[in-house]
Amino acid sequence: MTSRHDRELALRRDLVEAGHMVELPLRGLSAFTQTFEEVLTGVERLVHEMQPTEDVTVISFPPLLTQPVFEKTGYLDSFPQLIGSVDVFTGDGREHKAMVGAKNSGEDWTTHLVPARLDLLSAPCHQTYPLHAGTRLERSVTYETGNRCFRHEPSDDPMRLVSFRMREKVCIGTPEQAQAHREIGRRVGPDLLTSIGLQIEEVPANDPFFGRAAKIFAAGQRDAGLKVEFECKVYGEDQPGTALGSSNYHNDHFGLDFDITTADGELAHSSCIGFGLERVTVALFATHGMEVPSWPAPVRTRLGLDAQG
Amino acid sequence: MTSRHDRELALRRDLVEAGHMVELPLRGLSAFTQTFEEVLTGVERLVHEMQPTEDVTVISFPPLLTQPVFEKTGYLDSFPQLIGSVDVFTGDGREHKAMVGAKNSGEDWTTHLVPARLDLLSAPCHQTYPLHAGTRLERSVTYETGNRCFRHEPSDDPMRLVSFRMREKVCIGTPEQAQAHREIGRRVGPDLLTSIGLQIEEVPANDPFFGRAAKIFAAGQRDAGLKVEFECKVYGEDQPGTALGSSNYHNDHFGLDFDITTADGELAHSSCIGFGLERVTVALFATHGMEVPSWPAPVRTRLGLDAQG
Repeated sequence: MTSRHDRELALRRDLVEAGHMVELPLRGLSAFTQTFEEVLTGVERLVHEMQPTEDVTVISFPPLLTQPVFEKTGYLDSFPQLIGSVDVFTGDGREHKAMVGAKNSGEDWTTHLVPARLDLLSAPCHQTYPLHAGTRLERSVTYETGNRCFRHEPSDDPMRLVSFRMREKVCIGTPEQAQAHREIGRRVGPDLLTSIGLQIEEVPANDPFFGRAAKIFAAGQRDAGLKVEFECKVYGEDQPGTALGSSNYHNDHFGLDFDITTADGELAHSSCIGFGLERVTVALFATHGMEVPSWPAPVRTRLGLDAQG
Repeated sequence: MTSRHDRELALRRDLVEAGHMVELPLRGLSAFTQTFEEVLTGVERLVHEMQPTEDVTVISFPPLLTQPVFEKTGYLDSFPQLIGSVDVFTGDGREHKAMVGAKNSGEDWTTHLVPARLDLLSAPCHQTYPLHAGTRLERSVTYETGNRCFRHEPSDDPMRLVSFRMREKVCIGTPEQAQAHREIGRRVGPDLLTSIGLQIEEVPANDPFFGRAAKIFAAGQRDAGLKVEFECKVYGEDQPGTALGSSNYHNDHFGLDFDITTADGELAHSSCIGFGLERVTVALFATHGMEVPSWPAPVRTRLGLDAQG
């Protein structure tokens, strides 16, 4: 029996040797070459075409949250181990000279920086709630948004990156509307993944809450059925699967944090369905092999890969 | 005469009122909606199809540099005012409690973070040189790479974003090879932009070096003809133009910093041609108007916008 870690390293090595992935000098940072990117683009298009496709506002945000918005998301409270906060230099010439001196002496030059009050985005949907902060929604809104995400969890597993791309559809509205959106996600999410030849299991899940209260929060989230993950057992049937996407009902969490209400004056509820684009792409290589031309024809067609073939 | 700043605000207002741009609560951070993104995707495709198209390795990197690599780029020495350095939380439950307490009291909670030794990328090409650090290139290499860039220069000008997308083609090789790549860039760069109806002027330029020595560095870079910008006068003929792209000959700067040599044992030279994707897209709206269906038909066709109607 090879260990889980050995299997992760083996998949990583296969991707590198096939030329799809290039390792960078930090665990969890990887580059990807043309074929990988073409597959990922195909996956992203499928997410775009996935129901609901009507009345969806496509919107593209920068991968940074201003600090007041970041604080409202609750991420600092629940997932401090994953956050990334940006520092910048605002000094004069003398301070610059001191910083360069520190760098050249091999000292920590970041002490010369100050907080920019900007935080790296961890989930695309976090950018959508502030658009409606302090307002009453007369009808539900649904956004499609993709972004570059940061989660500081360095790993050898090619399925777990510090910096990765995610695409989501987010609904903000009444409890019924948010739940309906989530139920659509539970149906079309696994459909999308199985349509490209992946073996998917829907699993009740929880987010990686931090610290002593983690077990309680996690159990609460699981028991309330708030989060389901679309898992693929890329490391074998005897191993836990890896989430390629998830469908999440947030209850009134973001409605409360961002003071969003619905026509009846009640707090807005929200839900999202999202996919980790590198994860889905790596799962495709793990499932169908490292040579895209030998993938099943229907999978290639669905991903739009025949034109490049 | 309206001032430059008034004209910047007017263009910004036009983009927002047309629904193409959504303002976020920090100067220099903006979101963009579907039509804007479709135009930007068309621009990105034109850069991809732009000569040289053969023997080019397409590669996609994360928007983060590890600190040792970042230090080698010389960016801290020359452009400290633009950098962004990432801090993370590595503490235990007690430290987390203290950080949450600081946040809830409105204090600066970032003092509980530590440097991740990761820096936000400012130019896509910076990711390519480390791939060849400490090696001898038997033949030149050319990369095409796009990325999300960070430059901390908050502004009201919709052409100047803190977080933006850029796509580049980079050549590393002998002085002759790097110069030839740069000369191709000087030709095909303006061609690309004029083919979509933009009025372009090629202008000798310099990077925004910091501090007292800035004038000397800038003049040296201009006089040596190392950088040319493709400028568009989006704010009127009486105003300085804005660079939509540039073609840069780096001499042996990166060859020296990353210890890259060529077959003859000499330091490698490099050059790149790059485009700011939001800048080109905003220039298109400023030039052709806010309604894409009324843009000149050849421009729409070239950008692949006819299919979307």
